[in-house]
Amino acid sequence: MDYSLMAGGKRLRPIMVLAAAESLGGSLESAMPVALAIEMVHTYSLVHDDLPAMDNDDYRRGKLTNHKVYGEAMAILAGDALLTHAFFCVAQSHKRFGVPAERVLAITEELAVLAGARGMVGGQAADMLGEQGLTKLEELTYIHTHKTSDLIVFSLRAGGHIAGATEAQLEALSEFGHALGLAFQIQDDILDIIGDEAKLGKPVKSDEKQQKVTFPYFIGMEASEQKVQELTNQAKDALIRSNIPNPERLLQIADYLMKRDH
Amino acid sequence: MDYSLMAGGKRLRPIMVLAAAESLGGSLESAMPVALAIEMVHTYSLVHDDLPAMDNDDYRRGKLTNHKVYGEAMAILAGDALLTHAFFCVAQSHKRFGVPAERVLAITEELAVLAGARGMVGGQAADMLGEQGLTKLEELTYIHTHKTSDLIVFSLRAGGHIAGATEAQLEALSEFGHALGLAFQIQDDILDIIGDEAKLGKPVKSDEKQQKVTFPYFIGMEASEQKVQELTNQAKDALIRSNIPNPERLLQIADYLMKRDH
Repeated sequence: MDYSLMAGGKRLRPIMVLAAAESLGGSLESAMPVALAIEMVHTYSLVHDDLPAMDNDDYRRGKLTNHKVYGEAMAILAGDALLTHAFFCVAQSHKRFGVPAERVLAITEELAVLAGARGMVGGQAADMLGEQGLTKLEELTYIHTHKTSDLIVFSLRAGGHIAGATEAQLEALSEFGHALGLAFQIQDDILDIIGDEAKLGKPVKSDEKQQKVTFPYFIGMEASEQKVQELTNQAKDALIRSNIPNPERLLQIADYLMKRDH
Repeated sequence: MDYSLMAGGKRLRPIMVLAAAESLGGSLESAMPVALAIEMVHTYSLVHDDLPAMDNDDYRRGKLTNHKVYGEAMAILAGDALLTHAFFCVAQSHKRFGVPAERVLAITEELAVLAGARGMVGGQAADMLGEQGLTKLEELTYIHTHKTSDLIVFSLRAGGHIAGATEAQLEALSEFGHALGLAFQIQDDILDIIGDEAKLGKPVKSDEKQQKVTFPYFIGMEASEQKVQELTNQAKDALIRSNIPNPERLLQIADYLMKRDH
């Protein structure tokens, strides 16, 4: 659990939780347990995705994958325990920092939906089935939305809940997250083709080797780059149009992600 | 998810949730979401335990194991999604049946602890490491306690929380569950040696074939049977001594489990 959790990475999802809370004037301290929780969920999903029965990856974040170090059984169990512990962490935002129990239950429920069968796991299942050659652009968008956007949407909404967001504010955060998550994943597809292995911490062209379809495969590199730009603008517009008082950090994150090289 | 969840089994853990709520005069209806949740957690643990990297079992409850039907990737994901959905179900006891949010958060937290790294997953990890020949009776007790008792303790306490149990009542339910869970698992060890394959729905002598140590291996069959009896009595005493108003059903379950042949 520790090995994979502490292997680094951008910490994008926890930052999203904190930035969303901040955008509404909420306390960063009381958002921290949920920030930890979402990184645990993200990490568990990577540990399981890397397994031989799934993507069969040897490297992640520049280090050997969990099962290459600890064996498959321990990697499966470490993932299971990280997922389980995430729900413990969420509960701590009430117990330790006094976030109202009703809000914490709403966060728990949204985590279970967005990380579950109709969310992230559903996206991963579709991805696995897609490797059998069934994927169309529509299906790829489904996979990207659920594998990636759903946890980003969760992170933003959870930060919002902690800060006592209104329904309209939660909706704006969701819209920002959906568009940004898809942009993020298309950027990942692009970086898998033109990125730098040292910066990415994993081999490039893995999608091609695994015969995975990507946005560049369907619509070409130029249109994919344009799509990232469009989605990022769409995400930013959702926030700018909203009555979220301090969206600056979230807008900066959107710009940062569009320009990232890893 | 559906295949393994609907494959049958004793439904012991959900029955424990309902019986514990009943013992305190609580509503069975409002206990139902948590009853469903714990069966999902139990089922996910079986799906993952049966994987080739873990116990490598082909049959469970008289049917092919999940990965034999759907493949390893889908079995891993089905398990992940069942675990995640369990937390969704727990939250419904507040949302649909009005169990106070504070109590539901306490249940969420206990589920995360008792099913997690220091609970069930910890027991399974110790079990995996034990297969490398490290297990002593003390370690086997640790494995049985965490792999089996912890979810039974959770089920009983969760039913208690739903019915508004006091700390002393929760403590009595925990004591009942700890002793009963260990008795249950020793009985499983015994049935693996002397049981009937048709009734068990799985091959007997699998522990021996997998070179797993068991209670009969350490202390013999007779002493193991005596231990089951002792622990069952100890469990029942904890309830009888307590101020739980209607413990009858829980006591019946304890007797039933001691005499079961599958």
